[in-house]
Amino acid sequence: MSAAGLLTTTDDDLLRRFTESANTQDRVLVPTPAFHDWFTERRNANSYQVTQVPFRGLSGWRFQPDTGNLVHDSGRFFTIEGLAVNTDHGEHPHWTQPIIRQPEIGILGILVKEFNGVLHCLMQAKMEPGNVNLTQLSPTLQATRSNYTRVHKGKPIPYLDYFTAPWRGRVLVDVLQSEQGAWFLHKRNRNMVIEVTDDIPLLDDFCWLTLAQLHELLHVDNLVNMDSRTVLSGIPYAAPVDRPSLLGEDSFRGALLRSLAEHRGALHELPALLSWFTEAKTKHSLLQQRIPLNEVAGWKATDEHISNHDGKYFTVIGVDVRASNREVAHWTQPMLAPVGQGLLAFLAKRIGGVLHILVQARTQAGTFDVIEMAPTVHCTPNNYTDARPPLFLEHVLDAPAEAIRHDVVHSEEGGRFHHAENRYMVIEVDDDFPTEVPPDFIWMTAQQTASLVRHGNYFNVEARSLLTCLHTLW
Amino acid sequence: MSAAGLLTTTDDDLLRRFTESANTQDRVLVPTPAFHDWFTERRNANSYQVTQVPFRGLSGWRFQPDTGNLVHDSGRFFTIEGLAVNTDHGEHPHWTQPIIRQPEIGILGILVKEFNGVLHCLMQAKMEPGNVNLTQLSPTLQATRSNYTRVHKGKPIPYLDYFTAPWRGRVLVDVLQSEQGAWFLHKRNRNMVIEVTDDIPLLDDFCWLTLAQLHELLHVDNLVNMDSRTVLSGIPYAAPVDRPSLLGEDSFRGALLRSLAEHRGALHELPALLSWFTEAKTKHSLLQQRIPLNEVAGWKATDEHISNHDGKYFTVIGVDVRASNREVAHWTQPMLAPVGQGLLAFLAKRIGGVLHILVQARTQAGTFDVIEMAPTVHCTPNNYTDARPPLFLEHVLDAPAEAIRHDVVHSEEGGRFHHAENRYMVIEVDDDFPTEVPPDFIWMTAQQTASLVRHGNYFNVEARSLLTCLHTLW
Repeated sequence: MSAAGLLTTTDDDLLRRFTESANTQDRVLVPTPAFHDWFTERRNANSYQVTQVPFRGLSGWRFQPDTGNLVHDSGRFFTIEGLAVNTDHGEHPHWTQPIIRQPEIGILGILVKEFNGVLHCLMQAKMEPGNVNLTQLSPTLQATRSNYTRVHKGKPIPYLDYFTAPWRGRVLVDVLQSEQGAWFLHKRNRNMVIEVTDDIPLLDDFCWLTLAQLHELLHVDNLVNMDSRTVLSGIPYAAPVDRPSLLGEDSFRGALLRSLAEHRGALHELPALLSWFTEAKTKHSLLQQRIPLNEVAGWKATDEHISNHDGKYFTVIGVDVRASNREVAHWTQPMLAPVGQGLLAFLAKRIGGVLHILVQARTQAGTFDVIEMAPTVHCTPNNYTDARPPLFLEHVLDAPAEAIRHDVVHSEEGGRFHHAENRYMVIEVDDDFPTEVPPDFIWMTAQQTASLVRHGNYFNVEARSLLTCLHTLW
Repeated sequence: MSAAGLLTTTDDDLLRRFTESANTQDRVLVPTPAFHDWFTERRNANSYQVTQVPFRGLSGWRFQPDTGNLVHDSGRFFTIEGLAVNTDHGEHPHWTQPIIRQPEIGILGILVKEFNGVLHCLMQAKMEPGNVNLTQLSPTLQATRSNYTRVHKGKPIPYLDYFTAPWRGRVLVDVLQSEQGAWFLHKRNRNMVIEVTDDIPLLDDFCWLTLAQLHELLHVDNLVNMDSRTVLSGIPYAAPVDRPSLLGEDSFRGALLRSLAEHRGALHELPALLSWFTEAKTKHSLLQQRIPLNEVAGWKATDEHISNHDGKYFTVIGVDVRASNREVAHWTQPMLAPVGQGLLAFLAKRIGGVLHILVQARTQAGTFDVIEMAPTVHCTPNNYTDARPPLFLEHVLDAPAEAIRHDVVHSEEGGRFHHAENRYMVIEVDDDFPTEVPPDFIWMTAQQTASLVRHGNYFNVEARSLLTCLHTLW
């Protein structure tokens, strides 16, 4: 055992149990077909109506006269304001844009518990107004600070007590992670996984699923929501050492398992990866200045939306949400609606028989600290119709069918973003693809990504989602 | 071997080599008595005169008329400005103070190279005007960005090329780490250790020393400077498994070695430590607002100094520096001069035979992200004459002689701080000392601190210095 390795023996046991939950097809509490029936039933149990409304139709929200910022009367929740960005990293040295500012830290948390000797995750069928299909599979808890301190004065939040100290379970993951840097200024949420051993009541909209089941469901479009995907990205796995035939396999899967297991096969050692990240942060600058929304150039606000003159990036709209079920449920809010589908792809390559993924050092408007690690390709192709496309985009778009290892459309957070869909892809490149890459890129093993994602602000939320997708492939 | 441990096999080899350098008394390139002769000779080779001068005696520095900020005409180097702090963490909910703002990132770097099969560090005898004894032992490279981009238009900086990409050596440590949060706003420097195998020229003020020699020198007051101490804190060690008799010893040293080695003996597993840190960051807020220096309340500026009405904390002064050697060397600059000696102490306790140190979650005026990990006691006792002393201060001040494992006075950075001395202590508490501690404190093993110090902004600079001191005790 490595004398200065990060993980204690307890950790090793934890890795084994998570890995087993991801590998075991049996002993599930609810078979997957029954899950689908249940989910359809929950989806139909209530019906919702989400209507776009003009901003004057938003109750409690107003444009501040002096700044033009879109704010809530309570001063809480979030605001839409302006941001001026200066950076020497990326395509544009300077721009202004609307951005969501929500300085409070929410909780995204999954409870896990052993049933039949296998860890299960408590997942929730949850409606969010921005989802194309309204109801998706959420973590046990998905609460803004305004939620859980009851500013909304709504119903009590199920299972909240398990995610607040003093802990009633064992904390397995607990880390502050960033959210969409193109749309949020410095937004972070607390990602938590807590193991419980007590009996806990199973409420109507909740269901226990193994990691293997969740991995299967991650192959379905728009089902497992962003909050679930980011929390799942923090779960550490070991290679299934009890299956040596798989580990030795000359296949994509074998290379991925070795990437999860292998200490010797990494192209770069960890200090070199950390140095690459430090170098990118030191070399580049990102100056973020909050400005009034009415000083943002190249955007216009009407009573219907705030939009970009070229019709790019996103618009800000107002929505009115009504639930047909018997309990009172009606609210209005602004949302950010992206223009066009995004593309998030890892290129992956077998190097010495070990799968490596190509990670990008990326600066976005709202990035917390200059740089985060992003997918190899992280863009909305529509925004590049008149500009040079990002590096490696053609490798993704022109990939032959047999090189596409993952290709699923997932939604970003439906509480803030309206119909925000991204295509998540993993593309295997062949031996001819250069191992030498430009300075903003670096090859990492799956094990190396797992060791970094335990800490905040290494991987951006899109990369974390895609890492969760990667783990469905073994 | 732990399947998801952070360290690769290459890392393990690196740990072994660092550990050997810290453990080996022989094979040194320069015996320690000869080092002392050399150091005395270097100290006397040049003589310097540092004189306090009124601010109007500072060339190129002025108070901005509108803000009262003390700035350099070039707009570079650093500024002394005001900061308004609001926080719910610590003794005071609100205050204003002068603070140094220096947004650029400098490099603190040590070159290492094997001689006689043992890693040696290239250290420098360097004068800094704020040091009580002027010349101390610095890293190979200690350069602000203004330095290394030649704003000073001084002589070329020795060995700078080794610390800029493309790398001419192997990067072993490369991390952005914070500096004094009480005095600097969000200051970070790049801490680097680079291994070279080429022959490299040995310049006059430089000397190769093993880690064992540096550990010995860290027991001397005001010799190994802060920049050296913070870089050294990033060096990872393994327990010397080749010395089982030591590892099994029922002594402070044995308990410390087990703390470095032991996976099983930690009171808390790593996820629990990370959760404790996340909880502290989430629970507490720190709002930092830059304000004009002339709006800082409770401080006054004269032509001689900027000082606190109660005579506490620090003063800002001007100094004039002249070198008597033949090369031209004369400059003036503002410096921050702390009032009174600080006290930085870890309480350490054997828990299950494994040494644990008591780490504090601490918020300071200029902390980058709400909280960093600090020594158990981190204070200037003089500032508490009329207030409740910090927790555990009496355990340090009243410790019996045999419980004091380390007690050395070291200087903080002599380029910005004038006669800034802190007493660095490690105190072993006995079995009666409670294992249960208040929420702002947590027990960690030496191995756990080593795994966290690889990443930026976990430990503050005072804690990192003290971790370096801790490693001199095995």
